Amino acid sequence: MKKIEHIGIAVKDIDASNHLFASLFGKEHYKIEDVESEGVKTSFFECGPNKIELLQATNENSPIAKFIEKKGEGIHHIAFAVDDIENEIARLTEEGFKMIHEKPKKGADNKLIAFLHPKSTNGVLIELCQDIKE
Amino acid sequence: MKKIEHIGIAVKDIDASNHLFASLFGKEHYKIEDVESEGVKTSFFECGPNKIELLQATNENSPIAKFIEKKGEGIHHIAFAVDDIENEIARLTEEGFKMIHEKPKKGADNKLIAFLHPKSTNGVLIELCQDIKE
Repeated sequence: MKKIEHIGIAVKDIDASNHLFASLFGKEHYKIEDVESEGVKTSFFECGPNKIELLQATNENSPIAKFIEKKGEGIHHIAFAVDDIENEIARLTEEGFKMIHEKPKKGADNKLIAFLHPKSTNGVLIELCQDIKE
Repeated sequence: MKKIEHIGIAVKDIDASNHLFASLFGKEHYKIEDVESEGVKTSFFECGPNKIELLQATNENSPIAKFIEKKGEGIHHIAFAVDDIENEIARLTEEGFKMIHEKPKKGADNKLIAFLHPKSTNGVLIELCQDIKE
């Protein structure tokens, strides 16, 4: 794992939160993206080598809607950048971690992604992500 | 804010979690530190330019004990590296954020730190930290 690629934060109102985080960072988000397959609208802020991803549910079955219902707004996941996501999934499975996605899938921000099950990681929802090579 | 300095993760058993995160990262923690003033035992892992800080309560009044009682194990806070913590506190206060610490205090890992109140930041507990200059 090369670095924290981003931290995902579940929010109720992405427009209000974009305003809040722009004040926090002293600069605007650089991208908005809808991920229909996940039922989320996302917004990205840069912070040096890292990013913050705000996530708002677009329907009530979205994982973000369920997270907010259960825990309220707040940090949803940590994503680590990896060079080779398939190798990393194989290594972690061998180490005994449970994957939510045993094969990588297309995520936001031009990435291949896979989530680990938080039951195997101290309650922390962890995402692996790899840039999609052109 | 220059980067995510670290993410703090509340754990019940730091020895078990050190083992877990060593498997996750494929390398051991590089430091253990007790912060008596906060009632916590900490452990740090490097991940490129970022760190993961595991936090275990050392007494039942520790903020980490209260966090785990309420929410269970998981991500506790995000810390952002800043060059000048006093300037950043002044800027954020001016922007309308509420500080838990209006003046920086000594934290783990040779840092000056200050926390923002999560009620003003979408439920996210945010720490500012600045290296203590020799």
